[in-house]
Amino acid sequence: MTERFEADYLIETATDPRRAAETMAGEQSSGTFLRLPGETEELKARSAARVEALEDLPSATSPSLPGAAADRGNGWNRAKVTLSWPLDNIGPSLPALMATVAGNLFELQAFSGLRILDIRLPPAFAAAHPGPRFGVEGTRRLSGVTTGPLIGTIVKPSVGLSPEATAELVATLATAGTDFIKDDELQGDGPACPFDDRVRSVMQVINAHADRTGKKVMFAFNLTGEVDEMRRRHDLVRDLGGTCVMANLNSLGMAGFLALSRHSELPIHAHRNGWGYLSRHPALGWSYIAWSKLWRLAGADHMHVNGLSNKFCEDDDSVIASAKAQLTPMWDSKPCTAMPVFSSAQTVLQPPETYKRLGSADLIYAAGGGIMGHPDGPAAGVESLREAWSAAMAGVDLDEWAATRPPLARALAQARG
Amino acid sequence: MTERFEADYLIETATDPRRAAETMAGEQSSGTFLRLPGETEELKARSAARVEALEDLPSATSPSLPGAAADRGNGWNRAKVTLSWPLDNIGPSLPALMATVAGNLFELQAFSGLRILDIRLPPAFAAAHPGPRFGVEGTRRLSGVTTGPLIGTIVKPSVGLSPEATAELVATLATAGTDFIKDDELQGDGPACPFDDRVRSVMQVINAHADRTGKKVMFAFNLTGEVDEMRRRHDLVRDLGGTCVMANLNSLGMAGFLALSRHSELPIHAHRNGWGYLSRHPALGWSYIAWSKLWRLAGADHMHVNGLSNKFCEDDDSVIASAKAQLTPMWDSKPCTAMPVFSSAQTVLQPPETYKRLGSADLIYAAGGGIMGHPDGPAAGVESLREAWSAAMAGVDLDEWAATRPPLARALAQARG
Repeated sequence: MTERFEADYLIETATDPRRAAETMAGEQSSGTFLRLPGETEELKARSAARVEALEDLPSATSPSLPGAAADRGNGWNRAKVTLSWPLDNIGPSLPALMATVAGNLFELQAFSGLRILDIRLPPAFAAAHPGPRFGVEGTRRLSGVTTGPLIGTIVKPSVGLSPEATAELVATLATAGTDFIKDDELQGDGPACPFDDRVRSVMQVINAHADRTGKKVMFAFNLTGEVDEMRRRHDLVRDLGGTCVMANLNSLGMAGFLALSRHSELPIHAHRNGWGYLSRHPALGWSYIAWSKLWRLAGADHMHVNGLSNKFCEDDDSVIASAKAQLTPMWDSKPCTAMPVFSSAQTVLQPPETYKRLGSADLIYAAGGGIMGHPDGPAAGVESLREAWSAAMAGVDLDEWAATRPPLARALAQARG
Repeated sequence: MTERFEADYLIETATDPRRAAETMAGEQSSGTFLRLPGETEELKARSAARVEALEDLPSATSPSLPGAAADRGNGWNRAKVTLSWPLDNIGPSLPALMATVAGNLFELQAFSGLRILDIRLPPAFAAAHPGPRFGVEGTRRLSGVTTGPLIGTIVKPSVGLSPEATAELVATLATAGTDFIKDDELQGDGPACPFDDRVRSVMQVINAHADRTGKKVMFAFNLTGEVDEMRRRHDLVRDLGGTCVMANLNSLGMAGFLALSRHSELPIHAHRNGWGYLSRHPALGWSYIAWSKLWRLAGADHMHVNGLSNKFCEDDDSVIASAKAQLTPMWDSKPCTAMPVFSSAQTVLQPPETYKRLGSADLIYAAGGGIMGHPDGPAAGVESLREAWSAAMAGVDLDEWAATRPPLARALAQARG
């Protein structure tokens, strides 16, 4: 018996959910228009996807997506379905896995809703892929932050700063005490701010600061580009003493990302921009839990999760579920845990709830306005965020903690407007 | 003045559409939380995205997507918006372009709907990328089909056949007269049908058939995998005399695909499985017109478009718009036209309408049941499809044409059930 891999889906259909699930299973495995007398049963036993479980959910009153086969008076039935496939169909290949668990099925007429919720892979996948080479432990080691979150920020404006202006900003942020800084996802290798020049300018500042203070700020350089470019850029960052690179997952794709990650000797900060088009409709696309497993296995060390009360559409429950997933082992022998990155309108207000709900401070906390906009300057901004996290981890009320800590007190007053 | 690139969007918002469009432009360019007195205006002039056009559309009565900022009594306004960016922000990089035109914006709270409709790129992008190396002309040359569509099919069952069984089926299909055969997108390099073994078995049949008849059937081998694997697999196909490789675009991603296409010396048959999660909701994600331009520029020679009356959710207008787009030049000096691939429940019934609406027979027409299921066998199946296309191109009614052509007559009777 070959091992099998599994995927869970939310489905919505006007037909019987079990029949619809069988359609999915056929389409995504031994689907045929041939009559193969004799061989058919053996071939099916060897290659067919199976419906492993089906749990009915409350039905919908109208179709979530257009184009589905019309209601036959059954309403729009919803169910959670688990399919499984023989590993022998594809071998432990992530690109092939994507076509199998998330290929043509979203277009099938049987469905007015179809979303992949989770995946479970046999150990052969663990053996065949790098997983995060650094994760929480390696990121803490390289950044020198032994406890609590890495306090970080994003270079803003998103684009428009020259390499020199970027380095000036980095100098300010390093002096202010940040642990982590990242390029904006829009900042790549444009003529207005070439990648190599930016790395040279920024690393000069970071190395000088490290020489002075012993603290090397982790800067995630966005090397998003073609495979050979990315490998060359990675080598430059490594050679200049940098400790992190960043990649836009939806710009690279799985084959592109694996070509980077198998080459990389640095933590990879994985940016999920474009995630909205994969996930914004609740009855279509990908859950972050399923999607992020693929990238973690492929080697992502840091995974973005938005943050509580963020400026985007994602609600807090979804943010916490995504963050918890990054810290949940995929296998005992190969956990593939990644460091969740909280960002988007994060201030001193969110740490207590974030810590309480996540149960961990193994994360990167990226704040912009909260650092650069602190009334007493960036150093007070960074300090206020650390204090907010100390309060959260100590289980002490923010205002009580702030009574003897002016940077936090001032930041709280500012954040509450 | 630097050149600019543009993208068109459908937006839906409870706020003023122009203000919402300005939010998009800010988020996707010089968005900042810094106060940069003095420099701000110059930086914006250099780097900011601009709203180039805004056309109001009829508003929606309810939000298309959840999570948007609530209605303020304005209803859910819809508009078509054009944004432009300076090329200097990113340079002519397709991975960077994706993050810019299709990055974080789908998650913005301002929008209850956001879909990218089209993109227009300056010639620097043409210069920096391969485009299709074969396209229509090269595919006709390699397949020996000088007029009318390539008549083709897909190996079914999707998975489960051994290399030897696949080759047997290919022998049947080659003898039947097919021009084009492709792997199923689920068939990659699993232990049950290893890629190399499949290529060797199939090419033996195809080469033997070519030696006998002078006709080399074009077989699209699905080499989807990691970059180094794909390059090696490509070389094997080339070395054994194969004339086409196939790749699953959503499994590779843009960086992965470019690493293949820059290496490739064969036509690349681009499979769009997973397209449903990018496009199924009409107010979210990507139009095929925008999305396929990126892949054509990156080097895709054949692009899937479904077919009229297909088994999926896509309607005929959308199919024709997608197919026309593949044959529409991106630049006069570098057209980047790709051969549209019609498939999914295609029979002798669809050619007249397909030809009338597309205005071209520069396409691949993939039929399964219509070939293997023809009552007089596969050769009659292929012949019936050629006859249907001859009728379509001659502007003669199918039944009239069939009067003296038994294969078509039998196929029509079968298709009409």
